[in-house]
Amino acid sequence: MPTKRQPTVAFQGELGAFSHMAAQKLLGRHIRLLPCTRFEDVFQALRADTATHGVIPIENTLHGSVHENYDHLLEFDVPIVGETSIRISHQLIAMPGTKLRDVRRAFSHPVAINQCLGFFAAHKDIERMPFYDTAGSVKMLKEEGPVGAAAIASAAAAEIYGGVILKRNIEDDRRNFTRFFLLTKQKMKTGPRSGAWKTTLVLSIPNRPGSLFKVTAALALRDLNLTKIESRPLRGKPWEYLFYIDLQGHQQDEATRNALKHLSEITSIVKVLGSYQAVP
Amino acid sequence: MPTKRQPTVAFQGELGAFSHMAAQKLLGRHIRLLPCTRFEDVFQALRADTATHGVIPIENTLHGSVHENYDHLLEFDVPIVGETSIRISHQLIAMPGTKLRDVRRAFSHPVAINQCLGFFAAHKDIERMPFYDTAGSVKMLKEEGPVGAAAIASAAAAEIYGGVILKRNIEDDRRNFTRFFLLTKQKMKTGPRSGAWKTTLVLSIPNRPGSLFKVTAALALRDLNLTKIESRPLRGKPWEYLFYIDLQGHQQDEATRNALKHLSEITSIVKVLGSYQAVP
Repeated sequence: MPTKRQPTVAFQGELGAFSHMAAQKLLGRHIRLLPCTRFEDVFQALRADTATHGVIPIENTLHGSVHENYDHLLEFDVPIVGETSIRISHQLIAMPGTKLRDVRRAFSHPVAINQCLGFFAAHKDIERMPFYDTAGSVKMLKEEGPVGAAAIASAAAAEIYGGVILKRNIEDDRRNFTRFFLLTKQKMKTGPRSGAWKTTLVLSIPNRPGSLFKVTAALALRDLNLTKIESRPLRGKPWEYLFYIDLQGHQQDEATRNALKHLSEITSIVKVLGSYQAVP
Repeated sequence: MPTKRQPTVAFQGELGAFSHMAAQKLLGRHIRLLPCTRFEDVFQALRADTATHGVIPIENTLHGSVHENYDHLLEFDVPIVGETSIRISHQLIAMPGTKLRDVRRAFSHPVAINQCLGFFAAHKDIERMPFYDTAGSVKMLKEEGPVGAAAIASAAAAEIYGGVILKRNIEDDRRNFTRFFLLTKQKMKTGPRSGAWKTTLVLSIPNRPGSLFKVTAALALRDLNLTKIESRPLRGKPWEYLFYIDLQGHQQDEATRNALKHLSEITSIVKVLGSYQAVP
């Protein structure tokens, strides 16, 4: 059973996945890890208390929001208690003994391969080999030892599976960041709140001229600043929209409480998903 | 050289990709196709006039907006002139002669494989084989003829490469839709505008309480209805946000022109990406 001293952290992917790096950044290195196949399994582990914490990606600077995780946040009652951001940077990794000039095949998830097209253009003798998972491709190198093979994954994956980084940061675009949320049902330490806080809300409004204007008015009238707003059409409910909103401030602040009360007058659903310290 | 009679349509992916299906839905079957490796290549083909039209995915109901394509729309001056929506549904495809009971391996892009986990749970004797591309995996079956192999791709891919659909619609989630934009530099037929129109804008506002309130006010004061709004933090410019907005109406309507004039007073960038007939 997980103890309070050492958190058990559920995340989607293999050991060495970017979610694993985010878990370490949020909770340190003394954590037990529970790799999961699907995002939903992370939430199920929290519900079943097989994990004390969960770490999920919520948006990426190139690929947008992970709507699926917003759906799970609405369905499962596990508050957001932290956020962090990880730069997605790809390393060319091989097992010890393999040199860059020996490499003929590079395994990785196709999304990662497609983020390193400049590297492949400069190394036309290296074949691109699609694989399930970035970290999993390093694990495969370790377990199966294919000759002349490398993998593209995180620096953490190289460390975990005993790989050597042959070439660092081979990604084409350095503006590739993923934002992660930390989830837990555990009561967080209270006391005076210092620093900058953020609160994430989901709300649903009818698709009518002026609906969103009223929502932004309820926030602007309390001088609350939005750091994210996103609409999402609800399939099957063509006249309803779901909105994700991040605002600066804690849900217990007077201004936020007043704004939430006002929002509940004009929206059909308004749910606070959590308050957490803002990471710049 | 492309003629006006038969459009040449650039899209990302292989023949049989979902973008190819979107191109046919937008322009019919009498089109020349120009498959491209990257989204940027679609825009380059339009700039170089090697294509008359481009078709790009802009958002997916499960995975969110394709920020990269918004970046290209800002950079390249090619207006949006149409939209459509395609349900992403996956077919298990094999070459003629292969029966479902013969299949031991199923090739596809890992994102598609992960959208068919229910199928693999019910067919534990079929191994999941990651491949570059959904349609490309059907092409590979045709060219290489591996024994006991199938692919997961669109119905269009089955038709193009002479495959047989062994099992239809094996995706887990039927709410998986992708919205596509049609782009062209060609002048569109003018004349009286009938039906419902939409206009897509990008604008940039300073991150201050009330900024977004002013933007929504400029639209609500003209009774303009928003059908999409999304903020995107600009990396490297921490106090600026980019907003994507879709509103009902044509950019030449009086209300829209007045709203755009008002928006230009309160935003640092406001750019109309195009007006097009709304698809419900």
